[in-house]
Amino acid sequence: MRRLHRHVTTRRFADIVIHGDTAHWVEIADDTSLDARGQIGQVLAQIDTTLTAIGSDRTSLIQIVIHLADLADAATLDELWDAWVPEGDPPVRARVQSGLGGTCRVEMIVTAAVDQPA
Amino acid sequence: MRRLHRHVTTRRFADIVIHGDTAHWVEIADDTSLDARGQIGQVLAQIDTTLTAIGSDRTSLIQIVIHLADLADAATLDELWDAWVPEGDPPVRARVQSGLGGTCRVEMIVTAAVDQPA
Amino acid sequence: MRRLHRHVTTRRFADIVIHGDTAHWVEIADDTSLDARGQIGQVLAQIDTTLTAIGSDRTSLIQIVIHLADLADAATLDELWDAWVPEGDPPVRARVQSGLGGTCRVEMIVTAAVDQPA
Repeated sequence: MRRLHRHVTTRRFADIVIHGDTAHWVEIADDTSLDARGQIGQVLAQIDTTLTAIGSDRTSLIQIVIHLADLADAATLDELWDAWVPEGDPPVRARVQSGLGGTCRVEMIVTAAVDQPA
Repeated sequence: MRRLHRHVTTRRFADIVIHGDTAHWVEIADDTSLDARGQIGQVLAQIDTTLTAIGSDRTSLIQIVIHLADLADAATLDELWDAWVPEGDPPVRARVQSGLGGTCRVEMIVTAAVDQPA
Repeated sequence: MRRLHRHVTTRRFADIVIHGDTAHWVEIADDTSLDARGQIGQVLAQIDTTLTAIGSDRTSLIQIVIHLADLADAATLDELWDAWVPEGDPPVRARVQSGLGGTCRVEMIVTAAVDQPA
């Protein structure tokens, strides 16, 4: 039995794939015309929305790999991140600079624990 | 019990590691003298070969993180990707620009669901 | 039941998250004033320390994604890596160049199998 559950709205990628008790997804800001602060805040809010949609919450985050287009935005990331991440229950975090293209300033690759479907 | 199964042909890395019901592997083109289109097509074909080898298929892909050496190849990637990815069953996808070295134009980090060995 | 176990010493991220029978963590060198050789050696030693702490060892590594700040350090990485990785039991490995910031020369994103807690 392959316990795969997808939420798909586009041709190109799944919005989320749940495999067993692990959810996988990638977030970029819905509005990439925002500045870095706006995009980072939006991505964190989008993660909250996804967590709620899958019956989970921030304390179930396993790992977030953060790609910033410009490390000059690292301090802004950390400021918003520290206010967002649950105290005592943060995920593993990596943060690197990568080319993201266009006006995209941040992309986050997220894994979270979920209750297994019955 | 650690349910780890490796396929190993080199000293440096495993071609694939299967842990429980999840397979992990990384693909670069077997022939990195090809242009970007050639390398991307080859990497997608190599993923198919690996999926077949582990008794899986494209509909069992969980996530692919794509590293392109040059975002100028993004349109070519999307063209080949869209023709390859199973409609209605795509994996989660991230796409970033990273340095890959030499003439390597694309590297993909793949996870897929597999049936657990008995 | 969400089988998540964290080791947390900072506000910002977990040192390690264990989800079921998989451990996730990220390593940068404790001393980023070292040169690339020093940092790579230190990161590999830190992975050993973490493996011991979770009752695991190098043969249980699933995947390591290596971010180098400069691909000029790739030969040094391979030299130290080849001496470190267990012969016949290497993990899946990806290696890309990414911006890491400051004097950080290497960052590794690690997953390893662990025995499930009783």
